[in-house]
Amino acid sequence: MTGCIFCQIAAGELPASFVYQDDRVSAFLDTQPVNPGHLLVVPHRHAETLGELSPDVVGHMMTVAQRLMLRLHDADVRCEGINLFLAEGAVAGQEVDHVHLHVIPRFTEDGFGLRFAADYAAMPQRKELDRMAAAIRDG
Amino acid sequence: MTGCIFCQIAAGELPASFVYQDDRVSAFLDTQPVNPGHLLVVPHRHAETLGELSPDVVGHMMTVAQRLMLRLHDADVRCEGINLFLAEGAVAGQEVDHVHLHVIPRFTEDGFGLRFAADYAAMPQRKELDRMAAAIRDG
Repeated sequence: MTGCIFCQIAAGELPASFVYQDDRVSAFLDTQPVNPGHLLVVPHRHAETLGELSPDVVGHMMTVAQRLMLRLHDADVRCEGINLFLAEGAVAGQEVDHVHLHVIPRFTEDGFGLRFAADYAAMPQRKELDRMAAAIRDG
Repeated sequence: MTGCIFCQIAAGELPASFVYQDDRVSAFLDTQPVNPGHLLVVPHRHAETLGELSPDVVGHMMTVAQRLMLRLHDADVRCEGINLFLAEGAVAGQEVDHVHLHVIPRFTEDGFGLRFAADYAAMPQRKELDRMAAAIRDG
């Protein structure tokens, strides 16, 4: 898509530091890494949400991420753990409107992580969880 | 695996509020949701890391997550965006030693999100990114 930086990277029109590429996805280093070795797995087809992609491509993105996680453990990168992260929608933190899966090497006291609402840790009752499950399951 | 709560849930030995189940994976509500509708996608085979699972199962976990994301948008759940999150290793926030992919509905001012190190926002030079990419790519 014109003006989409990830489309331009996939097409070779913008530079990126690639770690993997095939006919369906590219993986390259995030230019604003939260830690060194922070990677993005990006489908070549332009899509803003996972739902617009074929299940085949979505599954492939994840198996590529799986392989890269093994690589990070073997490579000369500080990596004591790994996070996968994907944001769909601005409210979830999506900043580029082209699906991308973050693969983030983690190490002790790297300062990165999740933040939680002040009232987090509430344990809902099973009845409430079952009601919610039915709402999601049965539409 | 004996004593693993996700193995016990998959085997029907512990209760869970399921939204999806097939022969390879289960999806159910997290009992400590960061937001209502917070789901976990869990492989039935016990594995602490993604690397121990077959690419087939890993890909399938993601396509199940994709389907559940569409369900969350349609269901009676407050969902203006969605995060996928996976933690591998204690340093990355893994609390149950059985692979699980979080699917988290997000809404405005829900208080959840990422936290960054104080020195985040450094933009490494292309030369440094290329060096790192080679280290990961070529092992």
